[in-house]
Formats: sequence, structure tokens, C-alpha cells
Amino acid sequence: MARIETDKVLLETYSYDATGREQLPKGVAFPESEEEVREIVSLCRTKNLKITPRGAGTGFAGGSVPSPNSIVVSTERMDKIVDIDDKNLLALVEPGVVTAHLQKTASEFGLMYPPDPSSLESCTVGGNVATNAGGPKAVKYGVTADYVTGLSAVIGTSEVYQDLSPVRKNVVGLNVTPLFVGSEGTLGIITKVLLKLVPKPETRKLLLAHFRNLEDAGQAVWDIMKSPATPSALEIMDSTSIECVRKYRKLDIPKDIEGILLIELDGTKREVKESIDKIKEILKRYNASLEIASNQKEEDHIWSLRRAISPSLMEIAPTKINEDVTVPVSELSNALRAYKNVGKKYGLPVVCFGHAGDGNIHVNIMTDRNDPKLWKRGIKAAREIFIITVALNGVLSGEHGIGLAKKSYLGLQINEEQRNLYKRIKLCFDPDMILNPKKKF
Amino acid sequence: MARIETDKVLLETYSYDATGREQLPKGVAFPESEEEVREIVSLCRTKNLKITPRGAGTGFAGGSVPSPNSIVVSTERMDKIVDIDDKNLLALVEPGVVTAHLQKTASEFGLMYPPDPSSLESCTVGGNVATNAGGPKAVKYGVTADYVTGLSAVIGTSEVYQDLSPVRKNVVGLNVTPLFVGSEGTLGIITKVLLKLVPKPETRKLLLAHFRNLEDAGQAVWDIMKSPATPSALEIMDSTSIECVRKYRKLDIPKDIEGILLIELDGTKREVKESIDKIKEILKRYNASLEIASNQKEEDHIWSLRRAISPSLMEIAPTKINEDVTVPVSELSNALRAYKNVGKKYGLPVVCFGHAGDGNIHVNIMTDRNDPKLWKRGIKAAREIFIITVALNGVLSGEHGIGLAKKSYLGLQINEEQRNLYKRIKLCFDPDMILNPKKKF
Repeated sequence: MARIETDKVLLETYSYDATGREQLPKGVAFPESEEEVREIVSLCRTKNLKITPRGAGTGFAGGSVPSPNSIVVSTERMDKIVDIDDKNLLALVEPGVVTAHLQKTASEFGLMYPPDPSSLESCTVGGNVATNAGGPKAVKYGVTADYVTGLSAVIGTSEVYQDLSPVRKNVVGLNVTPLFVGSEGTLGIITKVLLKLVPKPETRKLLLAHFRNLEDAGQAVWDIMKSPATPSALEIMDSTSIECVRKYRKLDIPKDIEGILLIELDGTKREVKESIDKIKEILKRYNASLEIASNQKEEDHIWSLRRAISPSLMEIAPTKINEDVTVPVSELSNALRAYKNVGKKYGLPVVCFGHAGDGNIHVNIMTDRNDPKLWKRGIKAAREIFIITVALNGVLSGEHGIGLAKKSYLGLQINEEQRNLYKRIKLCFDPDMILNPKKKF
Repeated sequence: MARIETDKVLLETYSYDATGREQLPKGVAFPESEEEVREIVSLCRTKNLKITPRGAGTGFAGGSVPSPNSIVVSTERMDKIVDIDDKNLLALVEPGVVTAHLQKTASEFGLMYPPDPSSLESCTVGGNVATNAGGPKAVKYGVTADYVTGLSAVIGTSEVYQDLSPVRKNVVGLNVTPLFVGSEGTLGIITKVLLKLVPKPETRKLLLAHFRNLEDAGQAVWDIMKSPATPSALEIMDSTSIECVRKYRKLDIPKDIEGILLIELDGTKREVKESIDKIKEILKRYNASLEIASNQKEEDHIWSLRRAISPSLMEIAPTKINEDVTVPVSELSNALRAYKNVGKKYGLPVVCFGHAGDGNIHVNIMTDRNDPKLWKRGIKAAREIFIITVALNGVLSGEHGIGLAKKSYLGLQINEEQRNLYKRIKLCFDPDMILNPKKKF
């Protein structure tokens, strides 16, 4: 039987996630098997305790912040890669496997597991499935949902849902598995995941393009996405994010640059070469300058700039508001202009960066929770950004989730009938509402 | 208000599907809008009538055979392609659009809608979504589920579920849309579908390979799928299916051939050439002979052989048992041997053909419903084929669905807890159990 730990220091360690929100849990459990997860769910059900499933706590929406009166169920000890099936290109893993570890293991078989959230060195596959995590490679390879071909989970009744068939086509039963993906622990605790793998591409190249105008950069993204060159990453950084990084690192980027695109290409050597030629043509139209990384060291350097943005912003404004709205790629340029205007209107820097190629932008409103006036303006600006996004046919969150952080905005996108349907479905899995209650919807 | 027609000839026309099963409906409705669908559902709910949603009735599992005391809701008048968004590579269509018509229209924009069930000249997108239809191209491009990015549907409460956001990443709300895909009309009547499109490949080549041994052909499929050559179709035909076609058509295929592979490749000219070289190498190992179609006429001829199998078998044994089991591709050769052995054991020809590249085989047991002894043997053989399939980690149906035809075998694959979960989910959408009752699970 899995023990439920109640040591005070431990409870504090598991009381928060990457949003900084916190709530002390009643206990923390570290099950090592599906059977132990069942026992814990059964126990909590009997004792009327809530459950907060937890991967690595790297989420940006508060999904793993403990609910009041809850036991945190951490999957960190269920961390085995059960099987890499290089015949059928599948990996069967436990939920606590760290994403980067799965990627490395797949790579040893000549295979690739593409989803690459920025936290990949610490986040877990279970958490990635629960939030439908994305990352830069999503622009070519899709998000976690595109790789989950089966899973097992303990639902709120303490029954096991299991769909682990390794076939490529299956119309037997209802297609329930995708419902767990992105459900943020509200339907079940994932105990195993069957993931698709793909062959590792022959080669990869990384490009950096500088623009004197942010909207031009947005327009170039659209031109690239329309062209036959499919980048494996297409990231944008605005001047504010560049300046933030500059405060902490020496940057050889000219001062008058308003936008940067980071473009990664992979495939056969020939494909990559052809794509680079096409991209050069597009960049010429915008007078954008181009650097091509010539070795791994330069590549690592460029990626480290991109990954340094979020921590740099955190240093400057620890309580900034961080959104990950998504618009149709064709609307990217319009969206960037509108988000920047919201910043001007409320007198707050609005920093835009992220996965431009699939229209998923991390919009950061640089405000301060400790200054009531600034905070109120920040909240107003965030609401306006959501309204603009929905008006452009976009959505409130592309990959971070709703959790606690965005729940109050849900009405902007989801109507009452839809929410009632979600609630009825939730009750099929969790009739006592013990799994991550009051999150997501 | 949509009229409910009750003309006797019309009722008879809508009383059966491609399985040949039949049941007279109480009426047939031809709504022209979502609002009319709502009215019909509302009316049926009040009058305690059941509803049988229907696309073109081409299904092989009885999904659109009218339920007793039901109104058939045909979507054939909701047949508009609302929009082809060649910016974001999306098509918004009504459910009654014929699949081939969508393909042609997408093609005019330089785009492709890949799912290609054999009935594509008459089947509809709504039916394809309801059954998660596949087809030869699924081996490279995936099934209908891989293209449905949003939909709207009238559920059993007469409410509208709607998720038509054109973004590529969305984690807002529960991921309910995939639940409709393959649900065979048990959750709602689809009123609109938002589908992904892909760029049309530059070129295409069709190859035909002859094997003296069926298991060799199965093994070669596996070798091809492991190689870097990803075919856009990889179909297998056994000697019995070849002989059946031979009865109706002049064939220039030698008599001692036990297996044929039809291999289609698409992509850039260079990619296709490289893939052909790789496939030649593989075929050499099995002493298989190879023909490459040199023009459209030869290609059409080869595809027409493949498409002639099902009708030819129907001519010979109109009440044959037609299954579409699916196994992991690595098990294909074992599965083919085992299915053939079942035929020998029961003294019934077992004809195997279909989508070898994704392990989805159409296994036809040539029996006769009018001969009780033969029929009983056929049923026993079918059960044994299902048991073998599940033992090989396969599934009862890859693309045809469960409908009425396979319901009694569901217990071989799905346990009671799972089925109860399906039933609870069904009730969220259809609390009065009026939508296609007693189908699917």
C-alpha cells in the first residue's frame, strides 16, 4: 500500500507550481504502480479527500497547485520506460518519465519523440499528456495529442480505463483516449502512455533572422508557412524580449532590431538545403539579415537565447501575467500589432515571443502583483488581449492549459451549453468530484 | 421546419445499408440546416421516436440500418463546401458533401484531402467522420480522425456542440471533438466539419509486385514500412482475391502468384525515385517481380483491379462475412498465415486483401446465409479470426466500425468497466437514448 506522507517540509515542497500560486495539501503520495494509484483513489474517495495529480509541477496555469483538502498524487516514482517498440515505432512509458529522458532513449534507437516543451529537462510525460504540451517542434510535428495513441488511467471511481492497443487503426469502442489529453488531471490519474515515435531526421540546421519591424517578422512567418519549406521550429522574439535577455547576457544583436525569427529545419540534407534557399528568398523581401549556425556550439547559443527569455522576464517582473494565446497563423501579424497596442493603452510593456509558426504566442504583461494600481491595469490588459484573440478566431490557451489561472476567462470562448456538457462528462469519470476539482472548467 | 417524409417507396429506399441488413424506418427527414436538425431531434425526443443518422449508407457494419421505431435523418441535402481556407489549410464543409467532391475541390486549390475510403465517389464526409473512415492512403496520411480539427453537432438533448476554431493548438475546454469521430451517430448528428488539408504532392507513381508466397508478401510489407520509403498506399491481395477478379476480367497475372502488393509513392520527383530504388532492393530479396505503371491509364487499370475485389466477392458469395481486423504491421505475416489456416479448418475460402501497410486486412469468409450449415461454419470461423487478432494485439475493426455487425464480439476486446464508461458518456450526449440506439456498444 502506498503511504501518504504528511511531513511538513514535504507538504510545502508540493504546495505550488510554476505559477507561484500555493495551497498546502493534506498529504503527498508517491505511488509506484497502477495498483497503488487505485488504492489511493479508493482511500480518498472513502475519506472524502480531494486528489491533485502532479507531474513535475512545471505548469504555467496552476493545474497542479493543490486543491483545498487534497492529497497530491505525484507520479515521480512511476518513471520507467517500459518498452521502445522499434518495429511499430511506439514507446510504452510510465507517467513519471522525464520528457528529455524519453527523447534521449528514443534517439538511441534512431527514433524521435518530437514534443519539446521548454521545461523538457524536468517535466514529465504524464504532465505533458495532462496539459497537451506543445513546444517549438509542434509547428512541424504537432503537439502531445498527436503522439498519444493509447493510455491507461485510474478514474475517479478507482476503476482503470485502458486502451493500449499498438495498432494504427482502431474504431472499436468510443474514442475516449483523446479526452484525457489536455484534461489537466480532472478525469483520471494517468498510469501508462503509449506514444508514437518517428524516424530521426538525417540532419538539422538553425537560422536566425533579424527584422527592423515586428509586423514584417509576423508577415514573414506566414510567407514561410505557406511555402514548401516546413520548418521544424519557427520562433519569434520581439524587441522587448531581446532587451530583457540583453540585461543578463552579452548579445551581438544590433539595437535597432524589432523582431527576430529563429528558424530550424530538419530532414534529408537535400531537403534542408532546398528549404534554406526558399527562406532566403522570403527574407530578402523584408530586408531581413540572416545568420546560419555553422556548428552545434552556435546552435546551442541561439537556442539558449530563446530559452533565456522566460527566466529573464521573471527576474524583471516576477508576477508578470503570462498568456499563451493562439491565433490562425494568417492573423499573426494583426495579432502582434493589436497586443502591442494594448500595452501602449495601459502603459505596460507587453512582451511577445514564442511559437510563431503555429500562431501560439506567449504574451507577457509586465506588471506587479504588489502594486495594486499596476496589477489592476495588468488584469484589464490581459482581458483585452483575450477578447482580441477570440475576435481573431483564436483561443485563450494553446499549450499551457486553463488550470486556475485562466478559468475566469473561459466564458469568452466557451458557452454555457458546452460547459454543462463538460461537467456531465467529468461526472462519468469522477462522480464524487474528487479529481483536481474546480480546475479547467 | 424540415418535413418528415413517410412515402412507402422512400421508406424502403432508406431501410438498408451496404451490409444488406434492413429495417423499415417510421419516416425520413432531409434537413437543410443545423436549425432543422435541432427541430427534428427535438420533435423525436418529444414523440419518443428514435433517430438513425445517415450519410450515404455505404457502411459495412450496419451503422445506418434504421433502428426500430426510428426516423432516418439523412444529411444528403446539407452538401455545401462552406469554405476552403487555403491560408490556414482548412476546409469547412457540411456533412453531406461527397468525399470525392471535397477532394476535387481541394485539388483545385493545390491542396489534398487524403482520406479515401473505397466508396469515396458516393460516401459523405459526415459518414466518414462518424465511422472514422480510412482507405489506402491512411498508411501515409492517417485516417479521418487525423483531419477533423473541429465540428458542430446536434446532440440528443437537441443542444448544439460546436468547436470550429481554426487554430492549430487549443487546450481550452475538454477535447470532446475526437469523441464524435468514430461514434457512429450515437452521440450526435454532425452538422459541420472543419478538416485539415495538406499540400498536394508534386508527383505519384504506382507499382505492382507479384509474389509466389503470401507470407513473403506480408514480410515485404513489413520491410517496406521499416525502410525510409513511406508509401502513400500499400495494398495486399491474396491469390483467392486475384482469382475472383479473374472471373470477371481479363488479367495478365500469372497463375502461380500467391500474393500481390500494390505500392503507391508520392512526394517530390526525387523522393519518389529514391523510394522506388529502395523498394526494388527489398523486392529482390523475395524474388518478387515488379511492374511500374508508366501512365495514368495503367495506373487506373491497376487501381481498378484492387477496387474490383469487393464487388467480385459479392457476386460469388453475396452473404459472405466481411471483417476488417487490424494487427500491428510487424504481425501481418503471422496473421495472414493464421487466417488462412482458419479457412482450411472450416473448409471455407478465406480471402484476404486490403491495407497491408497499416495492418488493416479485409478478411472475407466465403459462406452463404441461405445454407444453415455453411453459415454456422462461417460464424465460427469469424469468431476464431477475431480471437487470433486480439491475441496478436490487434483489434476487431480498423475502419468499418462496429454498428450492428460486430457488436456481439465486442466482449473479446472491451471489458465491462470500459463498456459501462462508454454508456455513461453516451448518456451525457443522449440522455433519452434516441440516437442510433443499440449500435456500437
